[in-house]
Amino acid sequence: MTLFLNILELFGTVAFALSGAMVGIQKRLDLFGVVFLGIVTAVGGGVLRDLMIGVTPPRCFQDPVYLLVACAAALLFFLPFIRRPLARHEKTFELFLFTTDSLGLAVFTVSGVQAGYASSPSFNPILLVFIGMLTGTGGGVLRDILADETPYIFQKHVYATASLAGAVLFVIFHRLNANWYGSWLVSIGAVFLIRCLASHYKWNLPKATE
Amino acid sequence: MTLFLNILELFGTVAFALSGAMVGIQKRLDLFGVVFLGIVTAVGGGVLRDLMIGVTPPRCFQDPVYLLVACAAALLFFLPFIRRPLARHEKTFELFLFTTDSLGLAVFTVSGVQAGYASSPSFNPILLVFIGMLTGTGGGVLRDILADETPYIFQKHVYATASLAGAVLFVIFHRLNANWYGSWLVSIGAVFLIRCLASHYKWNLPKATE
Amino acid sequence: MTLFLNILELFGTVAFALSGAMVGIQKRLDLFGVVFLGIVTAVGGGVLRDLMIGVTPPRCFQDPVYLLVACAAALLFFLPFIRRPLARHEKTFELFLFTTDSLGLAVFTVSGVQAGYASSPSFNPILLVFIGMLTGTGGGVLRDILADETPYIFQKHVYATASLAGAVLFVIFHRLNANWYGSWLVSIGAVFLIRCLASHYKWNLPKATE
Repeated sequence: MTLFLNILELFGTVAFALSGAMVGIQKRLDLFGVVFLGIVTAVGGGVLRDLMIGVTPPRCFQDPVYLLVACAAALLFFLPFIRRPLARHEKTFELFLFTTDSLGLAVFTVSGVQAGYASSPSFNPILLVFIGMLTGTGGGVLRDILADETPYIFQKHVYATASLAGAVLFVIFHRLNANWYGSWLVSIGAVFLIRCLASHYKWNLPKATE
Repeated sequence: MTLFLNILELFGTVAFALSGAMVGIQKRLDLFGVVFLGIVTAVGGGVLRDLMIGVTPPRCFQDPVYLLVACAAALLFFLPFIRRPLARHEKTFELFLFTTDSLGLAVFTVSGVQAGYASSPSFNPILLVFIGMLTGTGGGVLRDILADETPYIFQKHVYATASLAGAVLFVIFHRLNANWYGSWLVSIGAVFLIRCLASHYKWNLPKATE
Repeated sequence: MTLFLNILELFGTVAFALSGAMVGIQKRLDLFGVVFLGIVTAVGGGVLRDLMIGVTPPRCFQDPVYLLVACAAALLFFLPFIRRPLARHEKTFELFLFTTDSLGLAVFTVSGVQAGYASSPSFNPILLVFIGMLTGTGGGVLRDILADETPYIFQKHVYATASLAGAVLFVIFHRLNANWYGSWLVSIGAVFLIRCLASHYKWNLPKATE
């Protein structure tokens, strides 16, 4: 099961690294900028979480596997002969990115809450939910701040809300002493499902009317 | 007296939450964005301060009363039938916001210095003043960075300077072993007074000439 | 030798403070904004590094000499009769700034890695290199985020890459138990040299092609 989770986290890391690299390419940054944005997007949420709960240096530097994976993914994506064939089949590529990005959001949200439980049993539910959302969405927020854009989470339909739902679900399951494997799968599935439904049916949260 | 301070802090929290929510509404963010900006503005300064002095998780998550108050204030403000009557009497509303925001700046500046003293008696005055200013102005800076705007403290007349003055005053009073209650009131009053005078007489700090 | 390093660090602090103050003046900020950006640029990298490795409060507040030097440098630069003569000889001034800024980048990168070694002997090379780059470039990134601009490191030719090279060199020398003085000088020299060459020959990292 740990292996299964590690594979999920690797998947999420690659997805987030690609989303960061893509923003860098759209902004016409150079090689360093593209790779840097990829790494920040992939590990930024975990770094912010670790700073909040007092884990220093952040875990991704203590065991830099994910950081190196993110670096490699962004580097490969930078190469034209790798990026172009993907970009040619635009529909397939968009679907691929949506899927991996949503899975990344789902996995990191739940693994963030899990890291909170592992850090201290005394954390209250609000802190745990916040930590989960920060882990899931923090990397993307850092990416958008560094790229000088209004953060994506403020614009994209039901992104942070999906993360919120998954974190709340996982905390509830934990309270109920539910089966650990089942809690993971249902929470991750919920985030993913909400993202899919929101994207397909163009769900949006209400905006303030004048 | 603790009750009095708690009431002041609640007041400041609500004021900052409303200022964050307002920026979110001006930027046409959705419900999540508006509430999120409200919470960040209200508790962001305290979070930055706690990270600087090594208090993890930040206090606002250990005891989430203020966070929930900020969330509720931003949510209520999002509702059109609550926001509209306030917006109708524009002058009154502006005055209300200026007052509460200035009071929030004043209270959080001084409570920030106080938190520094409580954290370690060995902190030097420069650190204490910095901590006070960070607590008072940090939430607004985070709000503006997230909303992709040049931070307010760089533009608005005599905002951070008022915070600086209040923090310095409180540190001096503490050095002189002045009466604790009096120190609070005079320091808070000074920040508030400077803000009022600066706003009324359109005080501005000099800008660099070419 | 410690004296020599302190002098280098003072030099870097002044250079970074001036670069921050200049961005503030270009953005037409007021006195507070100019001085604040100067301080953030000068000490920001060190603050981020200290937060990452769990040194709280950050060193620049525990011993605020560099902070005060940065404050003084930005204040002096704000004064028209000091800034104007410098600005008159534009070529000389640009050369002065390029030199000091590059020296600052070089010194802070290596002193960042050094701070990592001093903090814990168990840090892995990737963490140490990251810490060095963060110390060298972090202040400039904060400056650009606060000034609402796309960070300089994403645009300027071979800036972060020079920092990366210096950090890697210093880590390698340390591994090889090379002479400490020599390691410092060669690593600093390498960063400085790369910056000079990149500037003179207009080196740029490749950008992604469509």
